[in-house]
Amino acid sequence: MENFQIYNPTKLFFGKDSISKIPKQASKYGNKVLLMYGKSSIKKSGLYDRILNLLQDFEIFEYSGIKSNPLLSDVESAVEVAKVNSVDMIIAVGGGSVIDSAKLVSLGAKVDFSPWDFMIQKAVAKEALPVLAVLTLAATGTEMNAGAVIQNMATGQKIGIGLPLMYPKVSFLDPQLTTTVDAKYTAYGIVDLIAHALEAYFGKGDSPLADRFVFSIISEAMEAGEELMRHLDSYELRARVLYASTMALNGTTNHGKISGDWGVHSIGHELSFLYDMPHGASLSIAYPAWMRLNSVFLKDRIEELGYELFGAETVEETIEGFEYFFKGIGSPVRLSEAGISEKEFPKIKLQFVKNKINGVNIKIDTSRFDELLQYMK
Amino acid sequence: MENFQIYNPTKLFFGKDSISKIPKQASKYGNKVLLMYGKSSIKKSGLYDRILNLLQDFEIFEYSGIKSNPLLSDVESAVEVAKVNSVDMIIAVGGGSVIDSAKLVSLGAKVDFSPWDFMIQKAVAKEALPVLAVLTLAATGTEMNAGAVIQNMATGQKIGIGLPLMYPKVSFLDPQLTTTVDAKYTAYGIVDLIAHALEAYFGKGDSPLADRFVFSIISEAMEAGEELMRHLDSYELRARVLYASTMALNGTTNHGKISGDWGVHSIGHELSFLYDMPHGASLSIAYPAWMRLNSVFLKDRIEELGYELFGAETVEETIEGFEYFFKGIGSPVRLSEAGISEKEFPKIKLQFVKNKINGVNIKIDTSRFDELLQYMK
Repeated sequence: MENFQIYNPTKLFFGKDSISKIPKQASKYGNKVLLMYGKSSIKKSGLYDRILNLLQDFEIFEYSGIKSNPLLSDVESAVEVAKVNSVDMIIAVGGGSVIDSAKLVSLGAKVDFSPWDFMIQKAVAKEALPVLAVLTLAATGTEMNAGAVIQNMATGQKIGIGLPLMYPKVSFLDPQLTTTVDAKYTAYGIVDLIAHALEAYFGKGDSPLADRFVFSIISEAMEAGEELMRHLDSYELRARVLYASTMALNGTTNHGKISGDWGVHSIGHELSFLYDMPHGASLSIAYPAWMRLNSVFLKDRIEELGYELFGAETVEETIEGFEYFFKGIGSPVRLSEAGISEKEFPKIKLQFVKNKINGVNIKIDTSRFDELLQYMK
Repeated sequence: MENFQIYNPTKLFFGKDSISKIPKQASKYGNKVLLMYGKSSIKKSGLYDRILNLLQDFEIFEYSGIKSNPLLSDVESAVEVAKVNSVDMIIAVGGGSVIDSAKLVSLGAKVDFSPWDFMIQKAVAKEALPVLAVLTLAATGTEMNAGAVIQNMATGQKIGIGLPLMYPKVSFLDPQLTTTVDAKYTAYGIVDLIAHALEAYFGKGDSPLADRFVFSIISEAMEAGEELMRHLDSYELRARVLYASTMALNGTTNHGKISGDWGVHSIGHELSFLYDMPHGASLSIAYPAWMRLNSVFLKDRIEELGYELFGAETVEETIEGFEYFFKGIGSPVRLSEAGISEKEFPKIKLQFVKNKINGVNIKIDTSRFDELLQYMK
């Protein structure tokens, strides 16, 4: 085990009607709120009205229209709204893209340059607006961690950042709010949370208990997730997947390790960037391919994983176990299933080269990009 | 799953030489320190000198001599030292008893009555001194939770309390500091951490992922713990058991549940009170007996546990699995093994009746105390 730190100050309210706690929690941070959200879905579901009703004693400014692969341009525009109105806090209502965007806005509102500078380590963040998060999708983990991922169309990058300042102060997780998520995005969320646990598992350093937590989280996501796809309106199953998604990326799976790997996420981000492919879909394509690419080097690690999850005895059986599960819940495992033909490979390869896809622990050699693409085709 | 909250603000530094971070962390809280510790063992090991050396820029007041079943009288005396010297913080160096005592001192230092009043809900705590903890024994979990257990000789009670104010601000866990713990107390610590996970498992409410975490923690404690007994100086094994002990009682195993059970702890506390029996030893006697007492009512729950841990198929096989493990590491599973004969049973029964041993979830009927004692004999 490596030296490590545990520190996660986010206060998280989980369960039925937990959003009723918003006014009391928000009042600790002031009165002027920047309310951020995505598309009109929270208006259709009635959530928007419920939140405005809860916040009737607060002064509300809004920024909406955050895309599911969130854009720096939206972040920068929202920073302006925050600054002009001197808001005291941000309340982000949505999935990972809205909450990630809010985290960057919280940094940007305190400086006179673009928060992108923090992403590319050109500047060091010293303060941030408090962020409160209302999560409507089980997937991201951002509700209880210090990370955010943003897409910059100008530079052609989709990259992540993690800073202690970016922990949400309070998060509200009501599984009822996730029951309106359609089958496709429910599946992508399940893939995403499993991929988060896997990134920790394949990361740097050995921590046997952290490994056991990874097996626990993935087993739970597979058991509850599979059932959930057949009962999309089940509160209990939504709750189980939602809680698993938080635990998959709140630090627990990294205790005793140096870092996660994140190589597969770096592949996925490029696919999302090029084809606006949902994050989860990109990961269910990239993970099996990445494991095949590393099947020799990571033989023991993959076999241990497969044995714990599926009782599998070989690398190939393990990879097939994941493919079977991902396909079963409706997430693609090949580029062709996402409508991307081999003709696109030169373009994808160029993007991989340009942004240097790679993992922290497992290096992906440029000379093997063609092989990687073959596994994905 | 039940509604629940996650909030654990303790900052925890885990690993080799993590105590070197004490001065920087402590300086956030002021300059006057009440240093609390137990017996002379930290002087023999050299830890005392190292800590004084680290704290040379601080003004130090001391309270030592905390017993392993910590006494209210010590807490009250330490409160006086804290008050007279207007200390800014408490640094507790030791195992659960020292840290638990420090937590109560942190409350007592802010009021003009005994902190016992908080234990019996006669008063509500509103503030506390910051507590920093240096853990020297893997067992308790108190380094990352809001609980404390204290023994009151005047009233004949050993009881617990949990208040958010009592989370340590910072905890320092260096597995090297635990390598001097002897075989017996190492074993008791392993029993204690397993018992903590079991109290969550047998608690109120259903949370499948929390159950999986319980299985993970106990499996880890059994695997690393068994090996550790044969290699008491292994850093890696000490680290694994230490990390498992923190996770067993920092809230994680209770997410999605209403509460733990704590019936077995209530039995154990009475045995400790009567015979000054080490906490872990009392639990390895009480758990098998308690499971036998509830073998009908808890059949499915015990069988699931046994299957996950030992591949056991019956309640009896499961209980025997625990007994085999506890005995194997050197912790008693019967009162006779702890030198307590049947002649003592009326006295023990009287103590059980007087303090109403019971669980939150599983009630222990007074009419079954004789049966319970028979299982322990």
